[in-house]
Amino acid sequence: MTEPRATLDMLGRSALISVPAAQQILLDHLAGSTVDVCSLPLAEAFDRVLAQPVAAPEDLPAQARSTMDGFAVRAADTFGASESMPCYLSITGEVAMGTAPTLSVDRGCCLRIPTGGLLPAGADAVVMLEHTVPVDESLVEMVKGVGAGSNLIQRGEDIRAGDQALPAGRLLRPQDIGLLAGLGIATVTVYRRPRVAILATGDEIIPHEGKPQPGQIRNINSLTLAGLVRRAGGLAVDCGIVSDRRDLFLPAITRAVAEHDMVLFSGGSSVGARDLGEEVIAALGPPGILVHGVTLKPGKPVLIGMSGTTPVFGLPGHPVSAMVCFDYFVAPALHRLAGREVPPPLPETSLPARLSRNTNSAAGRRDVVRVRLVADGDGWLAEPVPGKSGSISTLSRAHGYFEIDEASQGVPENSTVKVFLYR
Amino acid sequence: MTEPRATLDMLGRSALISVPAAQQILLDHLAGSTVDVCSLPLAEAFDRVLAQPVAAPEDLPAQARSTMDGFAVRAADTFGASESMPCYLSITGEVAMGTAPTLSVDRGCCLRIPTGGLLPAGADAVVMLEHTVPVDESLVEMVKGVGAGSNLIQRGEDIRAGDQALPAGRLLRPQDIGLLAGLGIATVTVYRRPRVAILATGDEIIPHEGKPQPGQIRNINSLTLAGLVRRAGGLAVDCGIVSDRRDLFLPAITRAVAEHDMVLFSGGSSVGARDLGEEVIAALGPPGILVHGVTLKPGKPVLIGMSGTTPVFGLPGHPVSAMVCFDYFVAPALHRLAGREVPPPLPETSLPARLSRNTNSAAGRRDVVRVRLVADGDGWLAEPVPGKSGSISTLSRAHGYFEIDEASQGVPENSTVKVFLYR
Repeated sequence: MTEPRATLDMLGRSALISVPAAQQILLDHLAGSTVDVCSLPLAEAFDRVLAQPVAAPEDLPAQARSTMDGFAVRAADTFGASESMPCYLSITGEVAMGTAPTLSVDRGCCLRIPTGGLLPAGADAVVMLEHTVPVDESLVEMVKGVGAGSNLIQRGEDIRAGDQALPAGRLLRPQDIGLLAGLGIATVTVYRRPRVAILATGDEIIPHEGKPQPGQIRNINSLTLAGLVRRAGGLAVDCGIVSDRRDLFLPAITRAVAEHDMVLFSGGSSVGARDLGEEVIAALGPPGILVHGVTLKPGKPVLIGMSGTTPVFGLPGHPVSAMVCFDYFVAPALHRLAGREVPPPLPETSLPARLSRNTNSAAGRRDVVRVRLVADGDGWLAEPVPGKSGSISTLSRAHGYFEIDEASQGVPENSTVKVFLYR
Repeated sequence: MTEPRATLDMLGRSALISVPAAQQILLDHLAGSTVDVCSLPLAEAFDRVLAQPVAAPEDLPAQARSTMDGFAVRAADTFGASESMPCYLSITGEVAMGTAPTLSVDRGCCLRIPTGGLLPAGADAVVMLEHTVPVDESLVEMVKGVGAGSNLIQRGEDIRAGDQALPAGRLLRPQDIGLLAGLGIATVTVYRRPRVAILATGDEIIPHEGKPQPGQIRNINSLTLAGLVRRAGGLAVDCGIVSDRRDLFLPAITRAVAEHDMVLFSGGSSVGARDLGEEVIAALGPPGILVHGVTLKPGKPVLIGMSGTTPVFGLPGHPVSAMVCFDYFVAPALHRLAGREVPPPLPETSLPARLSRNTNSAAGRRDVVRVRLVADGDGWLAEPVPGKSGSISTLSRAHGYFEIDEASQGVPENSTVKVFLYR
């Protein structure tokens, strides 16, 4: 672990690059790499990514409908009607829900119509019930005139046949599924979920259910990463704990690369473990290592590589560092593989909060500071959660984090910071 | 559909109450109502709600560990060491990963130690590799002194045996699962997911895969609501399309109440459909109808009731109104049934945006305005998405919404609004 090359690598910062530079290199190498597509019934497509744009096959709605309870009229018959000078129309019948109207509206006449009822022939507007006064069963007083098209949704007003309903790359939200249902689309072509292999490396790691002997530690990262993969739209595949002996580790990673769309391994944060990670990624074949560490705290020793078109991430062993690296590098790569727009069309939202104490950083490095939020008058106080990056409880106690960017050497107490929430 | 009682009910606002009042009535009636609990292996508990607090069964870490690659030392041996006046220590061996150290650190001596290595007996600190200069295999120069405890994580520093690791009601995020894994917790007690029956009512509604005849419309709401239920942590059960004839509708709802934890039906927005909804909720038995409509646009005609301890929601038939009512009323009720903290411990985050045009509202009513976001210099422009509440495409085109509260009659162009994103 103390070989000069390794020592130099940790000491000299020449190998470290900035977070945006590392993200760019990674995404450039993933350009055009997406997983295969599959066809799914609409009811199963929720939260999947659309692989092809969908055009509306027909007008929605197919016919003009009333948007109010009231009377279907010829608008011209009501022109100028008011409380003081109402007009009177003969009620010649009623539009029923669920069937085509059989009656039409003649001059001086109207039909009762419920919300959602189809506009009958002859009518071009609806007068709301609230603007009418009943006279008797066959006569109604209109106390407000309407223009043609009032209180209607026109044929194709929601969406027209041939118009794009949804673009490719859209993560299907509940309302997107609703739109497709409204258009009668029964199956959709979506990307399958990327399969992500998760390996924990290190002879000291034991399954979390086990009882550690002195020097052993439980596997925290595999489950944490599985949860993060799931939230990012992937299918996590737990490939277990692998020895950090090269002769065992390399075959295990090679197999993982062959069988999955992405591979994550998390290892010790020692120089020795990091060297082995680099060696193994390099041995997987070109393009090999893309990023040898970043100017990020925590998360500096992250390794990013590719074997063919499969991204391979060597994440730091400390759970906090592993999660930070996931958010900055793994999640965007997973979104790209999954066919989603990268960068996302909308920014991550945040909560402004008042920082409870001076927080230092180093220029040229991005710091990710975990905070707990406490109500503070009408706003929120962000209290940095003390604790080392090996401490998983700091992540569990934190409500979110803020960033101190590369240009800054710290943030003074009482500054307003943008807190990104852990959800 | 034009009976005087019903007309009066839609005209007279006496039956409408504010959104916060309706939420309070609903949540008061749900106090203490949660679904049953079950026991799950930790790997399956992601995104479930913890039913009991979890205390740490042991110290984490179980023993002091190094957080750096370097040398385990007696801190006193390094006091005062500096670049200009280094101290020298004899290297008497190495701490290996994964096993208890067999060697101890004597005065004037040190052991090589990797990140994560257990602190050997005799040592009380670690000097980072970066602050040392190798002399030979058995001697190292220390160019910086350390205090006791430096570069270590102490036994129990992450969390102490007996301390609360997680509170009841916590939605288990990836890092919470990680913390439980670190503590060796193999199974957890969580609430089961609430089962939510979804019915679409109306003789004009047909399955979305079908071909509508004139006057018929496809079922949009059942799938949209299923997606929303899933996002809110429930299990959506599609109970199909039910006639709005009372003799068919009441038995269907009665069965749904008996077999589920919550019932949602969405019906036409006509007075007749609304009357039937009220009648049926009342007929299900006490406490019956709790809320007969709210001062909310869209969403005014929502019906909220309870049959015994089962909440029953009559949602407007218009998809936009149904989704707004889901967000304001169904989601908080579902969270309470699911055992989650209500109101949530943290606010929903939003994105500030500049409003593209004057947007009117009525005093005494909350308006929910769907917007599309467009990049606008460094910020965002919020463009209201025109379209009626029956238009599902407006929801699909919208990135989110902002609220115009009860006290306001509108928001002028160029105001900054808080946009809540649809994710």
